Amino acid sequence: MNKIKPRTLSGFMELLPNQQVYFDSMARRLRESFSLYGFTPLDTPLMEAAEILLAKGGGETEKQIYLLSKGDTDLALRYELTTSLAKYTALNYGRLTFPFRRYEIGKVYRGERAQRGRFREFYQADIDIIGDGGLDILNEAEIPSVIYKCFTSLGLERFVIHINNRKALSGFFEILGIGEEATDVMRSVDKLSKIGVERLSEILSGDLNLTQAQTSEIINFVTYQGDPFEVLGKYKGKNEMFDSGADELAAVKEHLAGLGVPDTHFKIDLSIARGLDYYTGTVYETYMSDYPEVGSVCGGGRYDNLAEYFTDKNLPGVGVAIGLSRLFYILQEQNLLNESALTAPSDVLIIPMTDDLSHAVALATKMREAGLRTQIYGEGKKFKVKVSYADKLNIPYVVFLGEDELSEGKITVKDMATGGQTKASPAVLIANISEKIKSMRSAAPIADKPY
Amino acid sequence: MNKIKPRTLSGFMELLPNQQVYFDSMARRLRESFSLYGFTPLDTPLMEAAEILLAKGGGETEKQIYLLSKGDTDLALRYELTTSLAKYTALNYGRLTFPFRRYEIGKVYRGERAQRGRFREFYQADIDIIGDGGLDILNEAEIPSVIYKCFTSLGLERFVIHINNRKALSGFFEILGIGEEATDVMRSVDKLSKIGVERLSEILSGDLNLTQAQTSEIINFVTYQGDPFEVLGKYKGKNEMFDSGADELAAVKEHLAGLGVPDTHFKIDLSIARGLDYYTGTVYETYMSDYPEVGSVCGGGRYDNLAEYFTDKNLPGVGVAIGLSRLFYILQEQNLLNESALTAPSDVLIIPMTDDLSHAVALATKMREAGLRTQIYGEGKKFKVKVSYADKLNIPYVVFLGEDELSEGKITVKDMATGGQTKASPAVLIANISEKIKSMRSAAPIADKPY
Repeated sequence: MNKIKPRTLSGFMELLPNQQVYFDSMARRLRESFSLYGFTPLDTPLMEAAEILLAKGGGETEKQIYLLSKGDTDLALRYELTTSLAKYTALNYGRLTFPFRRYEIGKVYRGERAQRGRFREFYQADIDIIGDGGLDILNEAEIPSVIYKCFTSLGLERFVIHINNRKALSGFFEILGIGEEATDVMRSVDKLSKIGVERLSEILSGDLNLTQAQTSEIINFVTYQGDPFEVLGKYKGKNEMFDSGADELAAVKEHLAGLGVPDTHFKIDLSIARGLDYYTGTVYETYMSDYPEVGSVCGGGRYDNLAEYFTDKNLPGVGVAIGLSRLFYILQEQNLLNESALTAPSDVLIIPMTDDLSHAVALATKMREAGLRTQIYGEGKKFKVKVSYADKLNIPYVVFLGEDELSEGKITVKDMATGGQTKASPAVLIANISEKIKSMRSAAPIADKPY
Repeated sequence: MNKIKPRTLSGFMELLPNQQVYFDSMARRLRESFSLYGFTPLDTPLMEAAEILLAKGGGETEKQIYLLSKGDTDLALRYELTTSLAKYTALNYGRLTFPFRRYEIGKVYRGERAQRGRFREFYQADIDIIGDGGLDILNEAEIPSVIYKCFTSLGLERFVIHINNRKALSGFFEILGIGEEATDVMRSVDKLSKIGVERLSEILSGDLNLTQAQTSEIINFVTYQGDPFEVLGKYKGKNEMFDSGADELAAVKEHLAGLGVPDTHFKIDLSIARGLDYYTGTVYETYMSDYPEVGSVCGGGRYDNLAEYFTDKNLPGVGVAIGLSRLFYILQEQNLLNESALTAPSDVLIIPMTDDLSHAVALATKMREAGLRTQIYGEGKKFKVKVSYADKLNIPYVVFLGEDELSEGKITVKDMATGGQTKASPAVLIANISEKIKSMRSAAPIADKPY
């Protein structure tokens, strides 16, 4: 038979079994963290009518989107989760209860040129809180506390959530007399961490034709090194939008302490803008302290109208997205996966030493009933092959069941990490192993250095 | 602004939040059950090069597959999970350890004509055990024990796993002198539960030209009502393949008792054939006792060569698939979702009765640290609206935090199910609620009647 060369498309992440365990553990911990804050899971289709996904329009998006058709219908694969949420919320408006807090962890598709660490199929993990006509500022404070909970539950330590407010920025630009260039100025400021102060000055005074005074006032504002509320205070009372933004920043900062986010892990950063036009209040970016070059690993913000393409209802919201596949790729590249995490497919491998497998089967059943992930090695291979199976898969415990054990009513367990062997009754050893496995299972998938 | 009518494609399951909780709970319990038997999770891409997914060929498949292209590459969306597993195993052969036990729960795509209970995007949950050159019969016995564990952990009670062996059937046909029609005979027998005895007789003696003797011997064999090993015994010693199949059935039956599967939940059924050509040993179908009309909800079997299109390696395996979206649809239609399962997005809703939210925030943080899924109602709405939020979402506990409570250092908790209110210290009430929530969380998603 002619063989077809097996391959996986470039830009599509396909993990080996032990990597997949880390990835799944990360996803599970995100789900648990989201749930703690009252977010409910959604799972929207990956495919939609093309007109739904293209409702927002936009050039880059359309170039990257995967289009297809079936019969008369033009279809598309989603390239992010927000449009699906907007559609869902508009479609089910009467059946939802607001504020509506949802999370979704799902695959999205972008036909980008594949390159290292950039994926065409990748997971995003999104949380959003959608209000019906309004949404209290408390929600804007809770979002970074969810980010903090998520990242720490993964085992990440060295990250900082940068927080700003678009009203404060826009108001500040108005105070400086910047009119229609404000959007371009916002976008340029947003690039500060990538391009540096010098280049930003050039763009502002060169490309965007701001005066030298405007440029240096902007630079001073966005790079202010002291307490940000000092520099915010200087402009207070001059512009209503600015004042409202500054007040919101103060409220967010105050709530964050109560929400258990330590000072070390968030920062009011007046240079954060989030390029996308639809953000209208608090905005967030999250940076890993030791890897600023990878950019923000979780960003988002407050927007005024989630679903304006689909409904007249006024649905303001706030949310953030984690690029989960990319984050996993970075953590793996940086050797931050926790080596003491349990990645084996089972906790125990039973190696029967007799032809009759019935005792091994009965023991496996007992162990599974006790919650131990148990596998019987039933293949007729040499003893060495059987043990090396456990070794290769990092299965922590191997049980030998031979004539001796059967006649004594005991089992022999080998701890693969220490090499030590213990012979005792099944009940005693099951209790022992369960205790140790419990602690192994609680290990976070990431092993970061603390601050 | 012109609005685009929000819609979800027909044949694409998109669930309301409370439905999604049931679905996710089912998926989580399947993952836990698979893990207990040493299966490791995989998550393969939904999109592959078209030549990979079409490697097997086959007319119906090609008609239903979603094809697309990007640049010069012809792409396709997977229509089942087995081809992805075959590709993965062939591609990563040297990095895997065999027997390789994997599960995958993922979406697949079929451009079928949409109809009630048939989906174009749906979840399959697959388990497979892949051997390298061989695979012990024990594996064929473990598969139905995993099915049993899966279904009972969902809360399903009334189902029976039907088990047969293709070698026994093929050998039996050889004993009867049936030659090249054997495949067609196999396929017709497989339809017995749908078409009945009379129609099967017509097909065998009519369409397939079997003699009356052959036909009635087949009918007697596949509908035998007594102990199947009695009728199997009658043909023993006449055909090697038959004998081997009958021995395997006996071994599977014996192991199943040791694996904890009660007699009530499996049945050696000589009429089960699984239409697909590639099955070569034990085959399985699972029927819900009260809903035979929905057909098998979990089927599969043993095959000799997983990846023959991709590699020369001999990779025999055994596996089954659960059509999870379809199963969920059926269970929901039959009103089998467990009403006492916890579907609320949070365990506790805190309603602050003061303008200052800081106490509510601090309490929420404490509750979340204790593992309670907690939400603060921070919107400036009327009291009635706040309470009805908890009511609509079925949030089981509401905490009121007013001036009285703050001055006493206590909180008032309302149990929404009983209407009872308790005032006590936060620590006491958190412990109380945690205990009750723990028991609510353990409720299975399905509430079936026991046998």
